[in-house]
Formats: sequence, structure tokens, C-alpha cells
Amino acid sequence: MDRTKIAAIYDDMDSFDKTEVVVAGWLRSVRDMKNFGFVTINDGSCFRDLQVVMQRETLQNYAEIAAQNMGAALIVTGTLELTPSRPQPFELQAKTIMVEGTSDPDYPMQKKRASREFLRTQQHLRARTNLFRAVFRVRSTAAFAIHKFFQERGFVYVHTPIITSSDAEGAGEMFKVTTFDLAHVPMKDGAVDYSQDFFGAPTSLTVSGQLEAENFAMSFGDVYTFGPTFRAENSNTRRHAAEFWMVEPEMAFCDLKGYMDCAEAMLKYVISYVMDACPYEMELFNKFVDKGLQARLEHVAHSDFARVSYTDAISILQEAQAQGHDFTYPVSWGVDLQTEHERYLTEEHFKKPTFVTDYPAEIKAFYMRMNDDDKTVAAADCLVPGIGEIIGGSQREERLDRLEQRIKDLGMDPKQYAYYCDLRKYGSCHHAGFGLGFERLVMYLTGVDNIRDVLPHPRTVGNAEF
Amino acid sequence: MDRTKIAAIYDDMDSFDKTEVVVAGWLRSVRDMKNFGFVTINDGSCFRDLQVVMQRETLQNYAEIAAQNMGAALIVTGTLELTPSRPQPFELQAKTIMVEGTSDPDYPMQKKRASREFLRTQQHLRARTNLFRAVFRVRSTAAFAIHKFFQERGFVYVHTPIITSSDAEGAGEMFKVTTFDLAHVPMKDGAVDYSQDFFGAPTSLTVSGQLEAENFAMSFGDVYTFGPTFRAENSNTRRHAAEFWMVEPEMAFCDLKGYMDCAEAMLKYVISYVMDACPYEMELFNKFVDKGLQARLEHVAHSDFARVSYTDAISILQEAQAQGHDFTYPVSWGVDLQTEHERYLTEEHFKKPTFVTDYPAEIKAFYMRMNDDDKTVAAADCLVPGIGEIIGGSQREERLDRLEQRIKDLGMDPKQYAYYCDLRKYGSCHHAGFGLGFERLVMYLTGVDNIRDVLPHPRTVGNAEF
Repeated sequence: MDRTKIAAIYDDMDSFDKTEVVVAGWLRSVRDMKNFGFVTINDGSCFRDLQVVMQRETLQNYAEIAAQNMGAALIVTGTLELTPSRPQPFELQAKTIMVEGTSDPDYPMQKKRASREFLRTQQHLRARTNLFRAVFRVRSTAAFAIHKFFQERGFVYVHTPIITSSDAEGAGEMFKVTTFDLAHVPMKDGAVDYSQDFFGAPTSLTVSGQLEAENFAMSFGDVYTFGPTFRAENSNTRRHAAEFWMVEPEMAFCDLKGYMDCAEAMLKYVISYVMDACPYEMELFNKFVDKGLQARLEHVAHSDFARVSYTDAISILQEAQAQGHDFTYPVSWGVDLQTEHERYLTEEHFKKPTFVTDYPAEIKAFYMRMNDDDKTVAAADCLVPGIGEIIGGSQREERLDRLEQRIKDLGMDPKQYAYYCDLRKYGSCHHAGFGLGFERLVMYLTGVDNIRDVLPHPRTVGNAEF
Repeated sequence: MDRTKIAAIYDDMDSFDKTEVVVAGWLRSVRDMKNFGFVTINDGSCFRDLQVVMQRETLQNYAEIAAQNMGAALIVTGTLELTPSRPQPFELQAKTIMVEGTSDPDYPMQKKRASREFLRTQQHLRARTNLFRAVFRVRSTAAFAIHKFFQERGFVYVHTPIITSSDAEGAGEMFKVTTFDLAHVPMKDGAVDYSQDFFGAPTSLTVSGQLEAENFAMSFGDVYTFGPTFRAENSNTRRHAAEFWMVEPEMAFCDLKGYMDCAEAMLKYVISYVMDACPYEMELFNKFVDKGLQARLEHVAHSDFARVSYTDAISILQEAQAQGHDFTYPVSWGVDLQTEHERYLTEEHFKKPTFVTDYPAEIKAFYMRMNDDDKTVAAADCLVPGIGEIIGGSQREERLDRLEQRIKDLGMDPKQYAYYCDLRKYGSCHHAGFGLGFERLVMYLTGVDNIRDVLPHPRTVGNAEF
């Protein structure tokens, strides 16, 4: 008989009443009441467990099962019975229980409430705990919701390259990729001889797929990427990892407002989708991780985001300062916003997700479109409570002369950007795009406050294990 | 007025009849008939173009538009009119046409039937040709179909790490990842001093997420990965790239048959989904790339795959040889199947996708489950006509003693695989999984026979441009 997944039973309990099923899963707890016993198992198909009832009289290997350790893999055959009068909606009356795999007594996941620090040393097992089962199912569900959102709107998914020979936007330190024997790197005239490397040129791991996404937006109109990106930054914070996933949509014939509308709709869609698909997981976060989570997400999904210009935001922050709010970093027009500023704006002032728009050109990337004031660019960052920046985006400079001038002014190598400029020579059009840090979204959705706990196997300074 | 996408008009033409719309797109052709003219534009929202009609008398900048080059970006306002008596179902009577961005006369995409080799030097522009627009939309659609297939079946999507400190299965040459200045790699006692590198250890780009996927299958039951993988192999073939995307499902309480059933269902699902979603793209491939494509895919989607043991496959090949079929590589029990053998089996003998099962243990990876004959392993490769191997998979060795012995026999480092063995100490269960080479799937779906033409920006030996 084929096994039945526990999720399928919860989905349609009535049809399973009094039927025989085979369920396979892992032991979560066992209680021996002498003449009968309870075994709780979970098969990973849903958050909820299945209670199995076994009778000493009829179950041949009752003693063997009663002695199993947490984590053991069991295959249970039995009759399902609805139990409307009990806390759980049904239970399985066991006819046979087979031990598929025992669990050694030193099973590291049996401690209740093990610290998250400890669980980071057990990344191959931690997905078996309630918290991490909830986190990684929400991660999967959110990822699918993002694909669904963009595909339903006709966006084309583009796999932009991971290995790159350009440095994109100079966005940060990059990891080098090479096939050289590092103990014997070939040199020529005092420099590394890259002609002997795999690609015949220095290559790195991408920090952004945006520039390549633009290539495809100029054909398909609306495209998005969803893939890993990398930063070799020596920063050991709760919000930074060396390897993380980004979603980078790029839209032709779209301006700054169009990007903000799209990004806001996307966030609301994903929030609603996840709350709907993962109610038990969200309940757990709300109970044990972040008490206000569900109410806050519910609110965000149904109210407009704030939108404020950088210039106005600076005024708001200066006003707060004047009224005694203590910022570590001083505020004045022209400075980049620090996390403390972002959090004040979104958490204390607007109390909801907030787009800050039209930043000074000096603190933003070369490809952002210059506004008519010749001082600010058509950029917007989306800040959310508890996280800070979750999305950064802009209208792109579509005017060839402006773009070439900016590349020159910043001392960048025009040859590196020849392809990018070509897009402005052949049918240029106004267009905009943004980047969503996917882990930050998962943190926002779950209330989990450390990026190491929302990545299956996080890579940070000094950590590339598992 | 908001712009209307051309796809939206095709989806519901009747409702657009005689209404005013704004359409933005790129010029594909222009014909000046003196008193009136035709401009064909495409906005990337669908494969089909829109025909715009302009009248010299009423369109103020008629001459300017008539002089535009291919690739120019235009914004057209006009009235849509159904034209049931013409080849195209509707046309747009232009009221105004604005040139959003001109296209220089040296636009490299205007040559009809430019060679694919030439277009590989124009990767930032080639998505504007019919062929590549079709390829990359099918790629996007197939990627979404894969997510949909697995999510609908309750699989959890896991982002396994790209940077890794283990060598997975010794599957192939790996790219090194480092932050060292390659001209001055720090040495200690004659060896590279990795304690000074970013991760404090030698790291590489992953060749497979399977082992990490197993970590999560032991919690969620059914999981899948879908992400980039890498091989630093110096092979310049039509089927190999240094960077490519893989789908790696992993299923607990699943055997070899379960894997094959799942993989077969997935391939059929994706084929049907793409044929349904991309009829014009598929028609183009069928016409210009591979005449038998649609009939073959239709057939595959609705018939059972062949399944044959390696041992029987060898007999079939030896029989063919005896009857005069000329193989370059000799066939005998124990040899690995070469592409010529795979193609004979799937193209000439079975004439449909074929699973070859139960290979000799010597030619397969350490983690595959040993069969009772102690000679073969519970592995199966799926071969498809025109491509050869598209999927490789196996039941995994779930018995701790067998696995440890095999790691030892092969001279592998047991410490590297301690985590992997832990899965067999704590609730081990029979399980299986497979890897689908996503580019090979796209090649199979499109008939395009070079992997460089199904990757947005392919990375191969000596090529990491764009």
C-alpha cells in the first residue's frame, strides 16, 4: 500500500475516517501508559503531527516501539479515526509499526528549546525543530509566491550569470573565482597571468544581476531574476551574509512610481500568500518569536506604504533630533541614511513600510537616472519596520550622453560598460527596476532576527561548513 | 493613460475593439506606402507583433516615423480595430507615435538569419531576435513549471549553498573561491595559509546540492533544489557549460521506482505546460529548428518511458554490434555508457525516453544504494532522444555501516562526510533523489542543439563576457 502523507489527511479528514492508511515519519514523542501508548510522528508534509495509538495487547513489538528515541523513523499501518471530542482532530490506531531507522540516544535535537547558536552548529539537523521547519517552509512558500506574482504578470524569469568578469556597480567586495593552483599562481611581467586561467580573464562571483537583466528587459519588457548573489564583506552583523538570494525585476517603459507600485504589490502579495499557505507556521512565530508579527503583517498587506522624498526624510530626522531623539550618526542633507535613521522613519515616524525617494546622486550608483534638479536621482529604497532596507531600486539612466558622462566622471572603465551603453544606442527607453534581498524578506515574514537562521546553510566570515 | 501590453490585447481582443490604447514597444519593420504606412512593433509581452497603421495626412511626424531604424523604441496611441478579413487579427490606427529612443543604423540585430555564432558575440542584444525570444521565454516557462510541479506536490524548495568547503561527490573539477590577492597568496610551511582566507578554509563552487538537500529531506520528506551548479571542466562540447542550473529533488521513504515515477511525471508535466503556454514559440522551433519537435514532445507527454536494466541494455548494444552497428567505444558489462550508446538506446532501439537502471557500483557515486547482488547499485539515468542523459538519480545508501565502509573503500575522508553519516544515525530511512540538468531540458524542449544558445550569458572555457 502506498504511504499517505499527513498533510493529505488534514486536508480531507472526513474521507479518511475508518480507512486503513500507511504513514511514514519521524518520532517526536512517545508515551507508554502501560496497556497502551501514544506515538507522535511528523513526516514533514505539514507542520502538524499525527498521533498514533498503540495497544500492548495487539501490537506485537509494543516494547520495541515504546523504547524508541526521538528522531527514529517509523512506518505505521493502521486505521484512521476522527476524534472530534479530543484536542487533536484524529488519531491513527496502529496495527503494525515498523522501525525503519533507529535514532541514537545522543540525538542533538531532543533538547527542548536548544539555543539558536547551538542549532547553528547542527545545520544538517536543525530543520527538524519546530522553529526551523517553520522558517524553511515559509522560505520555500515565499520563493514560490514571488515566482507566481511575476509569472502571472507576464514577467520573464532570467538566470543571469553567477560568474562574471565585470564588477557590476562596484557594489562591494567580490569573491574571486579561479582554477589556479593557489600555491603556484602563474605570473607574467610581475602580474597574474590570467590568460592561463579558466576564463582567460579575472572573474568573480556576481554582486547583482541587474545590468544583465536590463539586456533582457529591452527584449521582453518585464523580466526578473531570482538567484544567489555574493559579498565578500568582513561584516559580522545579524543582517549580512556572504551568500544570499536576490530578486531583481527590471521593467521597460516604467518610471520610479511604476517600480514602487510593483514592489509594493509584490510585498503585499507575498505576505498574503504566505499567511494563507502557512497558518500554523505563522502562529508559531507569533507566539514564540515576535508577538506582534501577524497583526503587523496583516496591517501591511492592507494599507498603503508611505512615500517620502529623501529631502523631506532628512527634515523629519532633523526635527526628531531637535526634539531630543538621539542618533549616533548626525543627520544633514547629503549623508547616506544609517540603519538607525531608516528604523526611526519606518518604525517610529510612519509606522509602516516606507519608500524614501530621490536621493542625492553622490551616494547612489552610476546607472540611476538624474532628476531635473541635477542633484538627486530617481532612486527609492523601501524600508520596513524591524529590518530597515529591504528593497532598493531606481529608474535607470536611459540617456546615452548622460550615462557616458557619468561613467567618465566616476573614473569607471567605459570599455567595461560598452554593452550596457549599447542598450541606449538601440531603442533606449525609460525603465526601472529593483532588488529585493530575499533573506531580509524571510526575516520580515517570520520575525527571526538573524540572517543565519533563515539560510539553509549560511555562509559568513569564517563559516562555509556543511 | 497607462500602456496596454500587446499580450493583453491578444488575450481578449474583442473587448479592445474600437477602444483607444497606448502601446509601447520596439520597431520590427516599417513600410512606407506613400500615403500611409505600416509599423510592426513588439513589446516582449508575447511572441506576436502588433501592426500599427499610420496615415500621412493625420500623423504629424509621419516622415520621422517612416525613417526610423529597426529596434527603435516607440510609444503609439491609437484606436484598436479588429480586422477579421486580414492575416493579422487586429491593427492599431495610430493617432500619435512618439519616438522614445532611436536605433543607430549599425544595429547588429537587423540582419536576417544572422548565424548563431555571430549572435553569441551579441548576447546583450540577441534576445531581440525571434529565435532567442522564443528560447528564453520557454526557459522561463519551463522553470516556473518545475516550481509549480513540485510545490503542488508539497515539496519544499531549498536553497542549498553555492560556496562549499566540501567536494560533494568528487563529481568533477571545481572552481576555487577566494578573497586572496592572487599575486600574493599567503603561504605557511610551504602550503597556502587558508586561515587567512575569507572562510578560513579552502572553498569552491558547488557541483551539486544533493548532500545538503538530503539534510532537508530528512525533515520535510520531499524537497527540491533549483539553482546554479558549476564544473571547471575543459570540455568544449555542445552540451557542456561551466555554469548551469540544476533541479535536485530528494524524497524520503522513496525507492528507485518512486524516483523514476516522479521524474517521468515531472518531464511530462513540464512538456505539456510549455506546449500549452508557448504555442507560437513551439511552432517556431518546429518550423525552423527541428521539424519533428512538436510531434515528438506530444508523443513523449502521453506515452510511458522505457525502463531497462544496465545489464539488459548492454545485451541490446552487443546485439546491435553483432548485427553490424558501429560503435566507437566497445561495449561490455562494466563499462560506462558513452553518448553514442545512450543515443542508440533512446533514439534507435526504444525510440522514446528511457531509464537505464542498476549500474555497476564501480562506475557510480559512493552514496548510491548497493543492490542485493553486491555488484550493482540502485541508480537510474534517464536518456532522451537527441540529448542523451538528461536526468541522473538513485536510491541513496541509508545503511550506516554500508555507507561508512564505502567511504573507507574509496579512500575518501570520513570527517568530510560526518554530517552526511549523521543522517543515518538519527532516523535513517530509504530515500531517493535525482538531478535534472535544466539546460538539457531546455534544449530538449526547443530542439536547440547548443547549450550556449539556451543560457542567457553562457560561461564556457575562455568565455565569461557580458
